[in-house]
Amino acid sequence: MEDVSKRINAAYGKIPCDLLLKGGTIINVFTGALEQVTIAVKDGRIVGYGDRKAKTVVDVSGKHLCPGLIDVHLHLESTLLAPSEITRLLLPRGTTTIVADPHEIANVSGFDGIQWMLEATEKQPLNYFFWLPSCVPATHLETSGAILTSDDLATLINHPRIVGMGEMMNVPGVVNGDRESLAKIHLADDHGKIIDGHAPQVSGSMLDAYLAAGISADHECTSLSEAREKLAKGMRILIREGSAARNLQDLLPLINDNNWQRISFVLDDRHVDDLCESGGLDNMIRTAIHYGIDPVRAISLASFTSAQRMGWRNRGHLGIGAIADIVVLEDIEAFRVSDVWKTGVQVVANGNITCDMPGMPAFSNTMNVLPFTLERFQIPDKGQPVKVIGLQSGQIITKSLVMRPRVRHELLVPDPVQDIAKIAVVERHKATGNIGLGFVRGMGLRKAAVACSIAHDSHNIIVAGMDDVSMFTAVQTIIDAGGGIAVCDGEIVESLLPLPIAGLMSDQPFEQVLAKLKELKEALGKLGANPDILMTISFLALPVIPELKLTDKGIVDVNQFFHVPLESEDKHA
Amino acid sequence: MEDVSKRINAAYGKIPCDLLLKGGTIINVFTGALEQVTIAVKDGRIVGYGDRKAKTVVDVSGKHLCPGLIDVHLHLESTLLAPSEITRLLLPRGTTTIVADPHEIANVSGFDGIQWMLEATEKQPLNYFFWLPSCVPATHLETSGAILTSDDLATLINHPRIVGMGEMMNVPGVVNGDRESLAKIHLADDHGKIIDGHAPQVSGSMLDAYLAAGISADHECTSLSEAREKLAKGMRILIREGSAARNLQDLLPLINDNNWQRISFVLDDRHVDDLCESGGLDNMIRTAIHYGIDPVRAISLASFTSAQRMGWRNRGHLGIGAIADIVVLEDIEAFRVSDVWKTGVQVVANGNITCDMPGMPAFSNTMNVLPFTLERFQIPDKGQPVKVIGLQSGQIITKSLVMRPRVRHELLVPDPVQDIAKIAVVERHKATGNIGLGFVRGMGLRKAAVACSIAHDSHNIIVAGMDDVSMFTAVQTIIDAGGGIAVCDGEIVESLLPLPIAGLMSDQPFEQVLAKLKELKEALGKLGANPDILMTISFLALPVIPELKLTDKGIVDVNQFFHVPLESEDKHA
Repeated sequence: MEDVSKRINAAYGKIPCDLLLKGGTIINVFTGALEQVTIAVKDGRIVGYGDRKAKTVVDVSGKHLCPGLIDVHLHLESTLLAPSEITRLLLPRGTTTIVADPHEIANVSGFDGIQWMLEATEKQPLNYFFWLPSCVPATHLETSGAILTSDDLATLINHPRIVGMGEMMNVPGVVNGDRESLAKIHLADDHGKIIDGHAPQVSGSMLDAYLAAGISADHECTSLSEAREKLAKGMRILIREGSAARNLQDLLPLINDNNWQRISFVLDDRHVDDLCESGGLDNMIRTAIHYGIDPVRAISLASFTSAQRMGWRNRGHLGIGAIADIVVLEDIEAFRVSDVWKTGVQVVANGNITCDMPGMPAFSNTMNVLPFTLERFQIPDKGQPVKVIGLQSGQIITKSLVMRPRVRHELLVPDPVQDIAKIAVVERHKATGNIGLGFVRGMGLRKAAVACSIAHDSHNIIVAGMDDVSMFTAVQTIIDAGGGIAVCDGEIVESLLPLPIAGLMSDQPFEQVLAKLKELKEALGKLGANPDILMTISFLALPVIPELKLTDKGIVDVNQFFHVPLESEDKHA
Repeated sequence: MEDVSKRINAAYGKIPCDLLLKGGTIINVFTGALEQVTIAVKDGRIVGYGDRKAKTVVDVSGKHLCPGLIDVHLHLESTLLAPSEITRLLLPRGTTTIVADPHEIANVSGFDGIQWMLEATEKQPLNYFFWLPSCVPATHLETSGAILTSDDLATLINHPRIVGMGEMMNVPGVVNGDRESLAKIHLADDHGKIIDGHAPQVSGSMLDAYLAAGISADHECTSLSEAREKLAKGMRILIREGSAARNLQDLLPLINDNNWQRISFVLDDRHVDDLCESGGLDNMIRTAIHYGIDPVRAISLASFTSAQRMGWRNRGHLGIGAIADIVVLEDIEAFRVSDVWKTGVQVVANGNITCDMPGMPAFSNTMNVLPFTLERFQIPDKGQPVKVIGLQSGQIITKSLVMRPRVRHELLVPDPVQDIAKIAVVERHKATGNIGLGFVRGMGLRKAAVACSIAHDSHNIIVAGMDDVSMFTAVQTIIDAGGGIAVCDGEIVESLLPLPIAGLMSDQPFEQVLAKLKELKEALGKLGANPDILMTISFLALPVIPELKLTDKGIVDVNQFFHVPLESEDKHA
């Protein structure tokens, strides 16, 4: 009660405000206009327009004031960075609120992973909220680090920074009334929380069934017709511009005067290099303006409409009563940020963070691998051709090929001539000793091996290489680092990016992560491989994307959704 | 859990839907377009677009389907009707959800009044929600039937049909940090509920202070400039078209492509005759269309944006997952309703209600008047001029006049020549015996008296007349009827509309109320009075509207906000 009365008194001029931002032009998302307004702030809220007594007066003449940007669908883990580093990167670019889905860390560490995220973000000068990850594990075809049932999630649903149920990726589960899927939907609904969607190319009666379950937004639209159907049926459309999936340009024509309030911008999965080079939501705003969207509307789509998606009345705008998340722009069309106030406190000045940055809490080592020897990577030749995962340039969909690798000493071995590498998935959560083995075509490796503890969605260790010694070295290097990405040649570690937080994220500054990534890519380049295979490899264990994948339990025919033998029934390669 | 799975199954075509509305054109508030869509309904929700198996198939070819209309600011009591009759009137006109502020009944009966409203509306085929009345009593200058403190209101705040704190009329209280006003604001805020505003002509730093308190909508704008300031600062604008205050035409130019989602239509106070003759929200939609607003947008402003105001995701549109409140229109521009489905059940067919209508619960007699005699109406002459309430044509604002009524037997008496009637306010809640006395100019009465138990905001019995016998008869007639409006001439009751529910509402069908009102107006007409004084008189005891008013405690100088003697210091009339 004390708080609101102070704000009222400050608004009414009875006591001084904390801050006056004087002489700027505000982006008014309510009117769609640019308006010259002096903003008064007290106790972290905007309390008035126009001159007032204030402890601090800042002249922002000639600048634009914009509401703090809001991303309602982001996977922090995809950046490879700890939350504090995401803050360091995105706060100076104008993002003040993020709703993250801790799907990856939860698949590794379950409840503890979510708790760590909550703890790590609690005192950040950027507000982090979380969706409860709805698909842990993603499938039964692999060994995950954790299982989170609706009962497990129920213990977190009332947390003030848990906003609802994260993207319901199990579309068949939802529309076929799978018990656990519905229990998760009810959990959110019963607690007045919302449910995020994920329904790529779902349409017609299947989409209707998905919506009838109460799912209210989708970020997976890739075409205008898909987005139009979903929007007309009542979904909010989150236009995504991730590092891999880029939909902004295709979907911009969707936006018009009648529907713009139903549309928001989100990043989903964006990598550290992309964030450093292009930016985050600021980059989406610039692109939208470049393609002809009115600047006020472009900014509204990354702030106001996102707040509306979440049901937040006091974020995403600069109205009176709003949380004082204010971004000062040097240039509105270029969305060039000079200063940021978060809850009324200056946190960025001239592009640099000026507030204290809390450190990250400790994270236990997640590498729990049953010791094994080199020989476990051997694949005996049965005289038959085998199924080979065929990479497709720039895609995470693979082809199921039938080929015959080289044979040496009655073993099937990689073949640089056919561009066939060996691939293994080493289980790392439960010390099961599981190692799935197979072959992949199209990596371009001439020698050596690359290994990675990011391997969607269970994040076992995946390794691809041209010889068993390099593969073994790479896997052991990652185990020793507590997770990471390594390129090894024989017993030599050519390059290593340690990712000790759940094997997914670095504990180092983003500049260092960026430099290490560059080094890894250079090492791969020297070995003849396309550096993009770093991302490709992390999807080779994801058994929900067609056609052929490998998990710690072996080869998966995704279209049939079960494990198949490595050897092909087809006798001829 | 069973519910949602049935809906999903029906959506997916695994089991039949309950209802298929086939071949109609829907008003799509998400796209702003008219779209030919067959709607499938299961368990009260819209579950799909397009043909499906269904138990009932209704051909609505050539008709438009529109979301049920929503009024977020209505005083039920102003209609003089019980909620069941409001349902009978408004449901066939397309309104399916009302958020009412039981301010009047609460001022008479406090907590019991609100409880009665909740009970009376619980099983209606129209959804009634309620604001908690924030100003009971409205002032200390009169004897009200009840006092509702923030602690009293706290016992109701978690009721599922209580949406938040009703219009905060005490603007000075809010902006000056009055303890009780702030406690009410905190009560709503702490429970995640919203706060309704009422801030006529408030602007500048006073408006800022009002908004800093967290108040989020206003229905009192009368000019474009007023509405523009409030909208730009973050308020939702509720355009009101009541019986007395009509703002629609003036405010229509406010609406544009950038702000329409921040604007809604509301009725506030609309009388039974107006509802019968012109309609409710349907009338506002027709008017808006007439003045050039696109029909889909006009309908959206009485449905979709209203639901957004309340934070309701599943009302106000025909998206999949929405509550199946569907209005079938014969003619979209004329907004002519033929049928209504409420939560998937047909409740109106060809303009007539087809569902069962639950009766109203009993309401205890609220007439608690200390017996008194005729002589209590006498006003001794002190040889001075007196303050006289000067009516202004068509307004509830009065002038403070100084006049000299006739003198007979050392008493001041009414004077038809000067058009001065005597006026009295008889306290009826606590049997205090209070009777306030004064004079009013401009009623046009040549003889007889009119009395009324609707007298804002405390609703004591107010009576104006040309002789004490008529006045006494009128007051006693109302007491005997348990409340009402009466015109009496001497000891003859010329006309009586009983209002036994809190002295505010009839327990009879609206047709009968309408007929009685007509009879009352005719009786007044015969006495030479303008029939509009029926409404005027009920505002003569409202001590928050300038300049001179009368309560049971005596004459009030509203500008000074305290009681003053009847006699004027000014010696010359």
